[in-house]
Amino acid sequence: MSADLNGTQKAVRSHPPAFDIRVDRVPIPKVEHPDDAIVKIRLAGLCGSDLHVFRGHEDVHEVLTCGHEFLGEVIALGESFKPGSDRRPPLYSSLKVGDTVIAPFTVSCGECHFCRIGFTCRCERNMLFGTPATPGGQAQYVRVPFAGGTLYNLSSIAKAASTMRGNINSIADTSLLLLCDNLPTGVFAAFQALSHPKFLPMSTGLPYPLSSLGASAESEALTLLPEDRALTIAVVGLGPVGMCASIALLDMLGARQLKYKVVAIEPVEARRKRMEAIFSIISKTEKGFGEYVVADIEIGKALVKEWTGGIGCNAVIEVVGNPSALTLAYDVVRPFGGIHSIGVHQEPMMPFQGRQLYDKNVSFDFGRCPVRAMLPMALDLLLRRQDIFGTVGGDGSLIEKVVSIDEAAKAYEEFNTGKCNKTIFDPWR
Amino acid sequence: MSADLNGTQKAVRSHPPAFDIRVDRVPIPKVEHPDDAIVKIRLAGLCGSDLHVFRGHEDVHEVLTCGHEFLGEVIALGESFKPGSDRRPPLYSSLKVGDTVIAPFTVSCGECHFCRIGFTCRCERNMLFGTPATPGGQAQYVRVPFAGGTLYNLSSIAKAASTMRGNINSIADTSLLLLCDNLPTGVFAAFQALSHPKFLPMSTGLPYPLSSLGASAESEALTLLPEDRALTIAVVGLGPVGMCASIALLDMLGARQLKYKVVAIEPVEARRKRMEAIFSIISKTEKGFGEYVVADIEIGKALVKEWTGGIGCNAVIEVVGNPSALTLAYDVVRPFGGIHSIGVHQEPMMPFQGRQLYDKNVSFDFGRCPVRAMLPMALDLLLRRQDIFGTVGGDGSLIEKVVSIDEAAKAYEEFNTGKCNKTIFDPWR
Ligand SMILES: NC(=O)c1ccc[n+]([C@@H]2O[C@H](COP(=O)([O-])OP(=O)(O)OC[C@H]3O[C@@H](n4cnc5c(N)ncnc54)[C@H](O)[C@@H]3O)[C@@H](O)[C@H]2O)c1
Ligand SMILES: NC(=O)c1ccc[n+]([C@@H]2O[C@H](COP(=O)([O-])OP(=O)(O)OC[C@H]3O[C@@H](n4cnc5c(N)ncnc54)[C@H](O)[C@@H]3O)[C@@H](O)[C@H]2O)c1
Ligand SMILES: [Zn+2]
Ligand SMILES: [Zn+2]
Ligand SMILES: [Zn+2]
Ligand SMILES: [Zn+2]
Repeated sequence: MSADLNGTQKAVRSHPPAFDIRVDRVPIPKVEHPDDAIVKIRLAGLCGSDLHVFRGHEDVHEVLTCGHEFLGEVIALGESFKPGSDRRPPLYSSLKVGDTVIAPFTVSCGECHFCRIGFTCRCERNMLFGTPATPGGQAQYVRVPFAGGTLYNLSSIAKAASTMRGNINSIADTSLLLLCDNLPTGVFAAFQALSHPKFLPMSTGLPYPLSSLGASAESEALTLLPEDRALTIAVVGLGPVGMCASIALLDMLGARQLKYKVVAIEPVEARRKRMEAIFSIISKTEKGFGEYVVADIEIGKALVKEWTGGIGCNAVIEVVGNPSALTLAYDVVRPFGGIHSIGVHQEPMMPFQGRQLYDKNVSFDFGRCPVRAMLPMALDLLLRRQDIFGTVGGDGSLIEKVVSIDEAAKAYEEFNTGKCNKTIFDPWR
Repeated sequence: MSADLNGTQKAVRSHPPAFDIRVDRVPIPKVEHPDDAIVKIRLAGLCGSDLHVFRGHEDVHEVLTCGHEFLGEVIALGESFKPGSDRRPPLYSSLKVGDTVIAPFTVSCGECHFCRIGFTCRCERNMLFGTPATPGGQAQYVRVPFAGGTLYNLSSIAKAASTMRGNINSIADTSLLLLCDNLPTGVFAAFQALSHPKFLPMSTGLPYPLSSLGASAESEALTLLPEDRALTIAVVGLGPVGMCASIALLDMLGARQLKYKVVAIEPVEARRKRMEAIFSIISKTEKGFGEYVVADIEIGKALVKEWTGGIGCNAVIEVVGNPSALTLAYDVVRPFGGIHSIGVHQEPMMPFQGRQLYDKNVSFDFGRCPVRAMLPMALDLLLRRQDIFGTVGGDGSLIEKVVSIDEAAKAYEEFNTGKCNKTIFDPWR
């Protein structure tokens, strides 16, 4: 159950305090705990979240191996994976050397209360890859702790693929890599917005509080007017996660046959152009319920005003991670609207007076995506939207390019300034 | 359709800047608009929200008639109430002079988008009684704008009372007055906590995100363990609204047969004692699913730690309205927990760093109760819990006393320092 793991490997490492990315040679990791797996990496993603360490916002004082998005092949497994370890998550008895896997960006044991209820990113043993807690995946090899809970076995899904609409075997690794973070996080963002009680009157057609109690015969007399159900939603920030959130949102709204207007707001022109290209791909298959526009901040604000007669959006999905994006979200949300914040926020205080939140009856969701729990929904969307997620480098593709790991420093710099979009490292090129 | 409304009446008025309550003689209000009703007040409540004006936190620079909780009899109606005005809310054709009514603390037209979807407190024409927008109900008469949307006709419900578990005719006015604000607001607080998507895994027994999609055959294999569904909830602040929230919470948890521990946290001893007495009344009929304790702040925090092994509450209901209560709510909430804030917050900024909210995946609900929409649920609870809501002055009753309106200044002062609990004014005594 082990491979020759002596020697060294290449790894992308951040040197404190900030803006210093180097490709260093470091030892190849070994199994340290019975629950560990060693994964030989085929592809590793560069992500907006990596920029928080890069920019020195994370208060990290040590050199660390970056990256929390990786796809690879299992090359060694700890003792827990020997047949017979039952009462553990199924992966402990089914995962094999040679299987293709991805990992969510956080370790999750699969056994604690938080893992069982689906809030996997707050696993009691959670560690974020690419932080002082555990080395990241922008390297040639990575050690995965609690691997029977953490890893997602694509090989076993490929075998059971009959229930999937697409065939996972035909999906490119670059596309599958999106399952580590960006796509499930986007799905989570959209799902939070559409599941919130303050959104349910519009989606169920029942007035509050019946909307949260489920339909019933006696309630049918109270069905809302069509115009009451017309939705306006803003997505704030169009990095790779915001783009995924926009795509997931349109998909869910369409599936629920809701009538909607969506504005995706982003200050950087290149990113707006990419989102526009993606929207025009979606418009080929979209069923005609909605309208969706990309805008810069000022035009976005004006559009919401115009669309809603000044009352604002039913929901805002914030995918940026700074106070100005939260302020913008507040400005464009309506009374009883929801602000669903996906951005990783730092030291600054929330930019709101208590009175402002009371006066608009605002609801907020903050925090990290429970990727492990969102993977089935994300995979379903990935398979159905290969016209977007299956391409690399086109105007309408989420992924801009695959580069050698040796180009990491340049890639970080370009990604940091919005000069390029999603970039993927091939550690063997 | 009118009564003799010449002459003057007594009214409780706040004189700026603060802490100056007087009973002045002012003109009796008249119908000013076709949608108006004039109500002769039988009882008017004093409320925690009145204290915001009393304490000078509301930036009010004029003398105003206080109070937003009143029960009375319709004595005059505008033209809109003449038979034949159809396509209006039903009350415009059914409300009669002589009917007994209550009003939610805000005016709501019953006709705009927000009224139709149940977010009535954010009616496009909303006004809060007892503010510069419209005079309050701590008086002998009050003018009710948009009365066909705003008023709740107790006389007509009394006639249709067969579907109610109790008989509304036997309910005291003091008890019915709780429907203006405190009881529906408490019900709203508890309902928000129990309806939130982050709460649903525990209440449905399905892991997230299935918990938000509804049960299905294929999902049943994923049913949670009983221990995963054990709930811990804190109510922060035990003024009349916090007490109502606690009672509503236990009622809903019991009805859903959920296993729970509830801690109600309050620094003022007299209020803790009252809540304890109420809990001991509830324990006579409670079905044995839960445990509920009243505690001061330090003991409350320690108890949550002990009960949850340090991870915190599934939900926190904040019913105070200051930053320290929000900080306490954050301290005792667990990752993926919800903070449901009912308190009216003022100028201070939210006392949270973005990072803190991200790190705990916190969700918040802020804002005003849509009383008009919550009234059916509140009335149902009121009728079933007359052992608490039907009494005045006992240890276990929410209402401490009914006093003459002439004693308003003293009542405000005592209520402001927590020396007395819910106080009701009789304007004719
Ligand atoms: N919650 C989670 O689990 C999770 C997962 C992944 C990423 N994230 C976070 O989500 C955020 C977005 O991730 P990404 O990879 O797309 O990052 P990114 O940095 O590539 O994208 C952020 C985008 O927001 C834009 N922006 C900046 N200020 C703005 C404003 N005021 N209004 C509108 N747009 C503005 C930027 O131009 C940029 O295009 C980051 O904070 C990241 O850390 C969170
Ligand atoms: N959202 C709404 O629609 C709505 C409706 C009614 C009232 N309110 C607001 O709800 C709040 C409560 O109303 P009330 O009538 O019960 O008011 P209240 O002032 O009588 O009660 C507040 C209680 O909180 C306690 N308290 C103060 N600091 C605390 C802390 N740090 N931790 C725990 N408890 C603390 C006080 O001792 C007091 O007993 C007020 O802010 C009121 O304006 C809101
Ligand atoms: Zn990422
Ligand atoms: Zn776990
Ligand atoms: Zn009140
Ligand atoms: Zn209205």
